[in-house]
Amino acid sequence: MADAVKEFNDVFPVLAQELLDHLRSLNIPKNAIEWFDRSMRHNVLGGKMNRGLTVAATLRILKGDKDLSEEEIFKANLLGWCIEWLQAFFLVSDDIMDNSKTRRGLPCWYRVDGVGMVAINDAFILESAIYFFLKKHFKKDSYYVDLLELFHETTYQTELGQLLDLITAPEDNVDLTKFSVEKHKFIVIYKTAYYSFYLPVALAMHMAGIKDEAAFKQAETILIPLGEYFQVQDDYLDCYGDPKTIGKIGTDIEDNKCSWLINQAIAKANAEQRKVLDENYGKRDEKNVAAVKEIFKQLDVEGLFKAYEEDSYNRLMGLIEKLDHPLLHKDVFITFMKRIYKRTK
Amino acid sequence: MADAVKEFNDVFPVLAQELLDHLRSLNIPKNAIEWFDRSMRHNVLGGKMNRGLTVAATLRILKGDKDLSEEEIFKANLLGWCIEWLQAFFLVSDDIMDNSKTRRGLPCWYRVDGVGMVAINDAFILESAIYFFLKKHFKKDSYYVDLLELFHETTYQTELGQLLDLITAPEDNVDLTKFSVEKHKFIVIYKTAYYSFYLPVALAMHMAGIKDEAAFKQAETILIPLGEYFQVQDDYLDCYGDPKTIGKIGTDIEDNKCSWLINQAIAKANAEQRKVLDENYGKRDEKNVAAVKEIFKQLDVEGLFKAYEEDSYNRLMGLIEKLDHPLLHKDVFITFMKRIYKRTK
Ligand SMILES: [Mg+2]
Ligand SMILES: [Mg+2]
Ligand SMILES: [Mg+2]
Ligand SMILES: [Mg+2]
Ligand SMILES: [Mg+2]
Ligand SMILES: [Mg+2]
Repeated sequence: MADAVKEFNDVFPVLAQELLDHLRSLNIPKNAIEWFDRSMRHNVLGGKMNRGLTVAATLRILKGDKDLSEEEIFKANLLGWCIEWLQAFFLVSDDIMDNSKTRRGLPCWYRVDGVGMVAINDAFILESAIYFFLKKHFKKDSYYVDLLELFHETTYQTELGQLLDLITAPEDNVDLTKFSVEKHKFIVIYKTAYYSFYLPVALAMHMAGIKDEAAFKQAETILIPLGEYFQVQDDYLDCYGDPKTIGKIGTDIEDNKCSWLINQAIAKANAEQRKVLDENYGKRDEKNVAAVKEIFKQLDVEGLFKAYEEDSYNRLMGLIEKLDHPLLHKDVFITFMKRIYKRTK
Repeated sequence: MADAVKEFNDVFPVLAQELLDHLRSLNIPKNAIEWFDRSMRHNVLGGKMNRGLTVAATLRILKGDKDLSEEEIFKANLLGWCIEWLQAFFLVSDDIMDNSKTRRGLPCWYRVDGVGMVAINDAFILESAIYFFLKKHFKKDSYYVDLLELFHETTYQTELGQLLDLITAPEDNVDLTKFSVEKHKFIVIYKTAYYSFYLPVALAMHMAGIKDEAAFKQAETILIPLGEYFQVQDDYLDCYGDPKTIGKIGTDIEDNKCSWLINQAIAKANAEQRKVLDENYGKRDEKNVAAVKEIFKQLDVEGLFKAYEEDSYNRLMGLIEKLDHPLLHKDVFITFMKRIYKRTK
């Protein structure tokens, strides 16, 4: 597995070089090339790279490790990097929209000295790099158009989830009547599950030569609820995780996030408890946060999560058990499940 | 020609409906659909639509008016609208980056009450719509991939031009040593000429069934300098045009724009004149603007433009005259030339 990480990491410099060489061939002035390079390194690198690593890992399961050529591993990792570039495009802009301060231990790109709103165009450029890579490396493959469409559609889905998130939970206007379990579900699935769970597996399936729509549909039926479960865990850990383990102090309550916890609390609260939530959610003061957490305690939101976690595990394992498409391997999904069940970070 | 405008305009409601129907099929909550609709109408409509109209106009010349079916006209206009959607994506974000106030007589989208930075994600969605339309209407056409690649590449080119523009001429940091005639040329070609001049013609060429790379190359060799000439006119009119005719009062000098005029002045100025430019360019006060205009007068920048205009006309007509690809019609380019030569608005 250490090898898989190394193989993946070794692809980045190759891709960075391809972009820079292309820019040089256009005679774009040097200051723009330097800026581009700095933006790419600041924004694409430094993450956990789980999504990126999943493409080759899935392809290994689908085709069997021994049958893969170096070229195939390289291309799977390249597709993994395309997801990381896509994520960089989302994160650079999300940080501006959320008025965030830091990301991956560094200042958000738009807060770097001298960058500011130029970061918006830098985000666009990060997205464009994907199609540059796909054309350069996959144009001759039978599934080239499928890759293009998959990236287009996943991008659009993520943007739609982001839209609903932004207008449902604006940081400067707390209104819990806008929240609902249904909206939370839509946001989570569209904003996170498609690009984080379905996309890496679907990319590997294309590389494995799978053409049958039904196989993609079956994969989606498992990966989307799996991604939903993953994001609910994320919401849970933001409030109840150990800051030392998760590496940050959660601020979903302060940030007026439309998280799983607040939606469970809203659904279960009586009029009095609801009043406390209305008056205290989305505020910076620690007294407000404590008041919200007290209601969470009264309603046993933590217990609701534990039950949800067990139920999700059983439901998802049941779905995996029923998988019957001859081109899909249960291991693809079981690997995912093992990695996330009862995770603490 | 009035018919052509009507035919074009009639396509917008069809496309808007397709997007909204698709959103409804996803069960995305109503508040998001309403937001999406409002963003689309605010940002895609209200322009001069020259780029959009050019696709069908060019196809008519390439294939001959009588040979075009209603279906072909519809599809050409649909591609024209894709350019308008692409432009909306660029303009929404450009207005944020330039801190602009109004656009097409309305407040910029990010300045509309309650929108703010959500406009960034709205811009992304405007771009995604293009690929939704292309898949829906062109998937079965032999040139589908060519359309996808053309939009990807043109988008990337525009973003690279925008990058150089943003870092060469930031509004809040005037430094004329960053300007040069070469940078101006790169900015203009990449930021404007590709999507405004090459893209509409290349789209029509694909629809006309042209496959020969050489034909696209020849078209590009004329359309890119034509677009460059068009943007130089734009820079000229910003300073010397009649505000009543062009519909706005130019502010390129105040805005520290890397325009053709200032670059000509820099190239010709003596040390004393250069000092006046350094001290007065990019400032809001009318005294500063007047000082810059006085130097322009001393250097006869207006005369330089007149000479450039004559030279461009002769050079471009010469290029058109030499066109020899059997699938290209000189009329495509002559129509463009006639529309822009010595334009006053
Ligand atoms: Mg955020
Ligand atoms: Mg956000
Ligand atoms: Mg979170
Ligand atoms: Mg602007
Ligand atoms: Mg601008
Ligand atoms: Mg102008």
